[in-house]
Amino acid sequence: MIYFDNSATTKPSQRVFEVISEELRSDDSFGNPGSLHKLGLKADKEYKEALKTAASILGCRDEELFFTSCGTEGANTAIEGYMSRNKRAGQKIISTNTEHKATLETLALLSGKGYEVVYLKVDRNGSPDLSQLEQELDENTALLCFTYVNNETGAILPLEDIVKIRERKNRNTAIYLDCVQSLGKLPTDLKTMGVQMASFSGHKIHSVKGVGMLYIKSGTDIDPLILGGGQQKGLRSGTQSLLLAKAFTAALKEAEEKREEAFSEVSKINSYLREELSERGAVINSPEKGLPFVLNVAFDGFESETMLHCLELYDIFVSTVSACSSKSKKVSYVLLEMGIDRKIAVNSVRLSFSRYNTMDEAVKFVEAVDDIYSKFSLKR
Amino acid sequence: MIYFDNSATTKPSQRVFEVISEELRSDDSFGNPGSLHKLGLKADKEYKEALKTAASILGCRDEELFFTSCGTEGANTAIEGYMSRNKRAGQKIISTNTEHKATLETLALLSGKGYEVVYLKVDRNGSPDLSQLEQELDENTALLCFTYVNNETGAILPLEDIVKIRERKNRNTAIYLDCVQSLGKLPTDLKTMGVQMASFSGHKIHSVKGVGMLYIKSGTDIDPLILGGGQQKGLRSGTQSLLLAKAFTAALKEAEEKREEAFSEVSKINSYLREELSERGAVINSPEKGLPFVLNVAFDGFESETMLHCLELYDIFVSTVSACSSKSKKVSYVLLEMGIDRKIAVNSVRLSFSRYNTMDEAVKFVEAVDDIYSKFSLKR
Repeated sequence: MIYFDNSATTKPSQRVFEVISEELRSDDSFGNPGSLHKLGLKADKEYKEALKTAASILGCRDEELFFTSCGTEGANTAIEGYMSRNKRAGQKIISTNTEHKATLETLALLSGKGYEVVYLKVDRNGSPDLSQLEQELDENTALLCFTYVNNETGAILPLEDIVKIRERKNRNTAIYLDCVQSLGKLPTDLKTMGVQMASFSGHKIHSVKGVGMLYIKSGTDIDPLILGGGQQKGLRSGTQSLLLAKAFTAALKEAEEKREEAFSEVSKINSYLREELSERGAVINSPEKGLPFVLNVAFDGFESETMLHCLELYDIFVSTVSACSSKSKKVSYVLLEMGIDRKIAVNSVRLSFSRYNTMDEAVKFVEAVDDIYSKFSLKR
Repeated sequence: MIYFDNSATTKPSQRVFEVISEELRSDDSFGNPGSLHKLGLKADKEYKEALKTAASILGCRDEELFFTSCGTEGANTAIEGYMSRNKRAGQKIISTNTEHKATLETLALLSGKGYEVVYLKVDRNGSPDLSQLEQELDENTALLCFTYVNNETGAILPLEDIVKIRERKNRNTAIYLDCVQSLGKLPTDLKTMGVQMASFSGHKIHSVKGVGMLYIKSGTDIDPLILGGGQQKGLRSGTQSLLLAKAFTAALKEAEEKREEAFSEVSKINSYLREELSERGAVINSPEKGLPFVLNVAFDGFESETMLHCLELYDIFVSTVSACSSKSKKVSYVLLEMGIDRKIAVNSVRLSFSRYNTMDEAVKFVEAVDDIYSKFSLKR
């Protein structure tokens, strides 16, 4: 099996499996961190240790991190919570139409409530129009919502430029950054990034589905999305799951340890595939300087879903659009927004890699594509 | 170790451990249910099977069930979502002050938004005042929020009476029922219970923390709390966790299979402890006809936390108030609301049982109490 769909989800690592097994085998690890007896205190202590470990990797303070159930919850909490809490900061939010649905749907909700949402144009590389940002970012702008790495193309946000514009135009404007796809792939040093909020997801970094993380910079206040017993300093109520916290942190630690090596290996895979597939007439939709972990490519003569199923015959797994949209949308809204011709967009598939992928798999992928063209193509 | 704190959380069962291990060991179980390839389809199929299994146990249709991250998320989603979606149903909500914080905090939020929230008085048995309900339930009442089994006392809601009053006074009034503590202990047949929404939690039935379930009756519409890719029919976005779904369903199945036997065994434990502890001068706060799985009892001469720590010396684990409130509140708001004297409430601890507890443990508990009185009590 060649799994090139790591932006959709990843296989939990052996280490994550071990951490979970150890937790479940333990007789005294199941306490409720809210309980006053020693089972509760142990769970609470270990939960805090998980936060500390995560904070040391993400370059922030442990009190700035909160466990969530997923990246989507993080996006909802950050965006809604910030706007709800900071009513005096302004009524305007600036974003793009290439965000993840978690952001876009939350922005649509806020727009329906009367907030002004401005969607910047993006260029052929997926970068937001910075001159438009410069123009739109005003005294009334409460929040910028961007994605560090686009999940469909690998486009990397020009974050430094955006932070500079924010500093110049309105230092009180907060930035929410969706870091789901960049985690474990790009360095993440929250204290120097200039963002006030950031969201992460476990299952994109070889942890399990059902756990994510939210960063809220000290001094930034938001209203919670989920109210109740006041767990996690009132910001995210609900009994904390030490099991999931450990499963997240273990994956994060591993991803960070292997980040540079993986980046180097995946860069080779990406370059090789770019070259080989281009030679075969495929169109590369991912920007030249995108993150190598994502390669969006259009195969001439094959609609996205057809190619996906053809590749499946070779036990190769890729995706068409984001898994979160794949059942409703046939064509990627991200590619269309980048100005990519619909005729190309309908033929596009996304290959997304992880540290477990190899050059050997890339070679086999190209062989499969050749075989598919020779067997199934009407055009050649 | 004698663990009498099962209302706070439970130890994951061996079966749950096996299901999780099997999932994590499998090479093709990690797909994103939103993916179009066979890994995605497999995950999607098994996710739907988990819903079907849960539906057959809970007596509802699978399309009426949604996985959540916890009981708290369920309460927030149901209450906020119903009021937001059904603006014409009225501006009034009826509940009690003995609900879980997830409900109380959500109601406080809605109250702040202008909704009218009426809290019914509860009697010494924890039952809401039904004549007050009869009086308050009017054409403007959109929602009733109650708990099937109170987590601190085991008080069982007179649900049938409440449903009858609703039928008589306003058939359009919806009922949200917090079933977190009743699940696996009382029969749960949603199609005949007369409620429109109900929430459940995995970690109270020997599954893991981080998964729960929400029931929304067909024909009842609510707005989602978490927006995004439109997973779970748009009602709860975020990549679905097959691992957690299976961990929940396995625990649910097991709890249902063992429900009657557990009820019978725990009833004996409860009766024995009621009698023995009463003989020793303890005051039983739990209602006579409460669920036997919870026994709230005040020990003369010992403040709650002191008794908790004394018992800990014997490796016995109990709680003072709900784990969700234990760090902020010294005295149970539930007991005070029931009209229990503060002097008794401050001495109260909650014993809560599961199918893993035995009569032998109950005997040892009484011995420990005797020992504690002889060693530590200043009064005797």
